[in-house]
Amino acid sequence: MDPASTGDDGSSRPTRVAIAPAPDDHIAAAVSSAGGEVVTDLADAEVLVWLGGEVDFPRDLGDDIRWVALRLAGIEAFLAAGIVDDRRIWTNASGFYAENVAEHALALLLAGLHRIPDAVRDGWDKDRVDTAVRQLHGATVGIVGAGGIGRALIPRLIACGADVIAVTASGRTVDGARATLPSDRLPELWSQVDHVVVAAPSTPETRHLVDAAALRALPTHAWVVNVARGTLIDQGSLLEAVRSGEIAGAALDVTDPEPPDADDPILHEPRIVVTPHVANPASGLTRTLAPWVAENLRRFRAGTPLLSTVRPDSSY
Amino acid sequence: MDPASTGDDGSSRPTRVAIAPAPDDHIAAAVSSAGGEVVTDLADAEVLVWLGGEVDFPRDLGDDIRWVALRLAGIEAFLAAGIVDDRRIWTNASGFYAENVAEHALALLLAGLHRIPDAVRDGWDKDRVDTAVRQLHGATVGIVGAGGIGRALIPRLIACGADVIAVTASGRTVDGARATLPSDRLPELWSQVDHVVVAAPSTPETRHLVDAAALRALPTHAWVVNVARGTLIDQGSLLEAVRSGEIAGAALDVTDPEPPDADDPILHEPRIVVTPHVANPASGLTRTLAPWVAENLRRFRAGTPLLSTVRPDSSY
Repeated sequence: MDPASTGDDGSSRPTRVAIAPAPDDHIAAAVSSAGGEVVTDLADAEVLVWLGGEVDFPRDLGDDIRWVALRLAGIEAFLAAGIVDDRRIWTNASGFYAENVAEHALALLLAGLHRIPDAVRDGWDKDRVDTAVRQLHGATVGIVGAGGIGRALIPRLIACGADVIAVTASGRTVDGARATLPSDRLPELWSQVDHVVVAAPSTPETRHLVDAAALRALPTHAWVVNVARGTLIDQGSLLEAVRSGEIAGAALDVTDPEPPDADDPILHEPRIVVTPHVANPASGLTRTLAPWVAENLRRFRAGTPLLSTVRPDSSY
Repeated sequence: MDPASTGDDGSSRPTRVAIAPAPDDHIAAAVSSAGGEVVTDLADAEVLVWLGGEVDFPRDLGDDIRWVALRLAGIEAFLAAGIVDDRRIWTNASGFYAENVAEHALALLLAGLHRIPDAVRDGWDKDRVDTAVRQLHGATVGIVGAGGIGRALIPRLIACGADVIAVTASGRTVDGARATLPSDRLPELWSQVDHVVVAAPSTPETRHLVDAAALRALPTHAWVVNVARGTLIDQGSLLEAVRSGEIAGAALDVTDPEPPDADDPILHEPRIVVTPHVANPASGLTRTLAPWVAENLRRFRAGTPLLSTVRPDSSY
């Protein structure tokens, strides 16, 4: 992935890349260092690296733009708005941020098990915290949706002495998991695991994938972690399950709706910890994205398939 | 370590084991299941498994007691009180709880880097938290005192994409560490690492091992984690370093003094998270301890060296 070693494929004119809606140093450096590309205005570009959301996206995009690179993995809003068309190549950032998100999932799970939120809230309350702490080593963790994030999480969990049951659409064996279930056997998962990490894409099929029945089937010591989308969990049922002691707690980086209102009970339940959708921090995004953009520029010039392409009928 | 497969060494009389100051189901099961041991009163015992502290320890212990098994790794108080004598074998639990403590150290470090305490305190404050989150992957972590805990922590950190510089008394290479420094080169460590985990024993030499000079030499993005003893860090200097931005924060399972007063500033500094000495939860202690007691009973009967012996002149 060293851009300097590529980019000279004999074409006479450099690829013209627009970065919008605002300039970005990390992406500009990735484009310039490639040697075969130049940063230009949108009107003159054949590639658009779009670092904004769907609302401001230029709706009158001409056919000169042959590839649009979106900066996020979850691009439901672009699909719903009909922005992703079949007149050019589109890429999202699926998998590019997997390490960041997997690390946040582990941080959330360990924080819950080791009762760090309780310590922050209540100070030195040794007797109560001491009896509540549980260990990840020796536990079985279910990962629902073992794509890039799940695959990055598995070796971390195994190094922590846990083992993993993965759930994927196909049920094809996932490296490192003790067992892999296809998604139609998801209801079997809950009673076989100690804790669950939700890392599946948001689709109509995955909505409320963790529902009241799932929460009842989980053990009472279970922690539920969500680093995907808030809608994958029936949040009302989750609140009830935590309050009634059906599960031990939940650690969420995403909520439904998002952001939650200041008085949303999800923010005020002692055994639920919520981080404000920072598993993949927006402020560090383009630094992480830049080498992937450089790699896809190389592929674009070489005419080989780009990483992480999406189509108008993609479900996520 | 299957007790049922051992214990029949031909001796005619079972080893008599007292469990004090109170009975304990996990330890009793470990003793009984061994086959060659029985639980008895202290007056009739040759082995004492002491599950209490130093204050209540029976000071008139007769020579019939040939081995005392203490339940903790840190037994400074027993040594200081002169309880550990040279009239019998003494064991502590050094290394028995290493997995628990290593896991807590990782939980604390990740919680700090991913700003989970901020989220608990301040609710959904996305912009501020987003810019503060840092990743463990790609970072270099210094582990000061790579005994059992440090050795259990290293593979966890490596699986998280970090690399490790270890510091040990001898400087002998520690498996998995990129480099190992002897303790007399400790001052070189601080500028070579992103974060530090303190896991050294408490001795006169390790007191205030993290001092004002160390904190100045660490990078400003550093998190300092302590799962050893509060006295290993100069806590006043730590507070100043966090307040002045010399380091990013601290995540502590131990304090100086311990417990801290309710108004101790260590409990009220937003960038310091304190858990109430629960890395190895007392409430789950004998469950973790039991298989090690069973193994040492087997060794005691067989006349082979016990695990984790200590002497009156031990420094920890």
